[in-house]
Amino acid sequence: MSLPSATTAAKSSRTSASPRSFGPVELDKTSAQYGFIGKTPKPGWRGTDIAGTLAREFSCPVGFDTDVNAAALAEHRWGAARDVNSLVYLTIGTGIGGGVLVDGVPIHGLMHPEVGHIYPRRHPLDLEFGGVCPFHGDCLEGVAAGPAIIARTGASLERLDESHPQWEIEADYLGQLCAQLVMTVSPQRIVMGGGVMSQERLLPLIRPRLSHWLGGYIDRSECLDGGDRYVVAPELGDRAGVLGALVLAMDAAASAGKC
Amino acid sequence: MSLPSATTAAKSSRTSASPRSFGPVELDKTSAQYGFIGKTPKPGWRGTDIAGTLAREFSCPVGFDTDVNAAALAEHRWGAARDVNSLVYLTIGTGIGGGVLVDGVPIHGLMHPEVGHIYPRRHPLDLEFGGVCPFHGDCLEGVAAGPAIIARTGASLERLDESHPQWEIEADYLGQLCAQLVMTVSPQRIVMGGGVMSQERLLPLIRPRLSHWLGGYIDRSECLDGGDRYVVAPELGDRAGVLGALVLAMDAAASAGKC
Repeated sequence: MSLPSATTAAKSSRTSASPRSFGPVELDKTSAQYGFIGKTPKPGWRGTDIAGTLAREFSCPVGFDTDVNAAALAEHRWGAARDVNSLVYLTIGTGIGGGVLVDGVPIHGLMHPEVGHIYPRRHPLDLEFGGVCPFHGDCLEGVAAGPAIIARTGASLERLDESHPQWEIEADYLGQLCAQLVMTVSPQRIVMGGGVMSQERLLPLIRPRLSHWLGGYIDRSECLDGGDRYVVAPELGDRAGVLGALVLAMDAAASAGKC
Repeated sequence: MSLPSATTAAKSSRTSASPRSFGPVELDKTSAQYGFIGKTPKPGWRGTDIAGTLAREFSCPVGFDTDVNAAALAEHRWGAARDVNSLVYLTIGTGIGGGVLVDGVPIHGLMHPEVGHIYPRRHPLDLEFGGVCPFHGDCLEGVAAGPAIIARTGASLERLDESHPQWEIEADYLGQLCAQLVMTVSPQRIVMGGGVMSQERLLPLIRPRLSHWLGGYIDRSECLDGGDRYVVAPELGDRAGVLGALVLAMDAAASAGKC
């Protein structure tokens, strides 16, 4: 079978494996569903046992987390968030996901954050569009992920002229996402990756929208216009996810070594 | 001067003091503004040095955190969230605030969460009301805190008949807040206190609105209708804040004891 991602790492004569997966996934080690994919809209993956498949295949410690938590761990260890301990890694692509690290550790809690499914205020130029999320219609993922852009305009972002209103709409929705994250998880940095963000002209449009939605309440220069060290591009590019699986595998091996 | 709250605790022959304050406050111990109140809309408090005032007054370790983080710590140690490690404590009163604990520790990050200032989708029966937040107008605090209810109806919630649409509007906004928190910080429990929540009939109206806004995506029975162990009332009532200051003071004394 083809797994979303699997990486092995050797450390102290130990080998470990560490898949990372799109969500929702079960991360509670006390659950019978640990390591399974939950109610994803992605066809064919619902109910797949990711961690168990690897554990049966290899005789080694297995780490497991979401793809975005893995990318957050990699950007924290080697990338754009090396100098902070609290960060969000966002991916804006076929869906919208976010991994949240607090004191360097991914937060799980009830399950894990699913930041793509918050509800933004609708942009005035976008009120007619119903959104494409099968669960929520016009949640953030439903109006700002890649498929929403195509559903609205018939083209992906890079094919739209820079004067096309889609750029402004997209930047506003993603600025709202950043603002909601500042208000709820208060990260020291937000790293924005994924296919949609590979359009480099988008990031400078998002920062002033974050500032707009904060409304002058959060008195931190990091968040304000021109605060280009607060909302940043990944430094590890497309490799963040795979390198994050390596972090998980190294941590799993190190934990096993302590037993 | 009258401080928002101050508590002293003795432990191992040490005394410690621990104010807790409404936000925004500076919690970064490396900042020259540590222990100060920031840009609060509350008159007379902006720029007040809370922690420093106590530190100069008493020769003892001083802990410091937001009022809502203190209440969250108390409900976690002695109250409605004793059996989980990840929770949000909300207060819905003259303002709306939230303290977030991850693995039992308040998250600070850039500053601290300010969950009252997220933007809910406007309720269809409430589109004409502009909101009262001096920074954002119709952010959550601007449409759902006590002053918003009075501005909209001329009365506080307890004086409104249960058939008044304000009950439905209020429950919907607070259900959206809970849903946004599930999506961003994924708490194992949400504890809702404060003056507005003292109306006991409100909580059962909020739970189905949380479920509505989750839209079936989060596959956890804890969050669904009737999940009355997920969104709960405080067990410590009005004492949560003061008891939380006691937790902070005890922790400050214990840390000092380790030095």
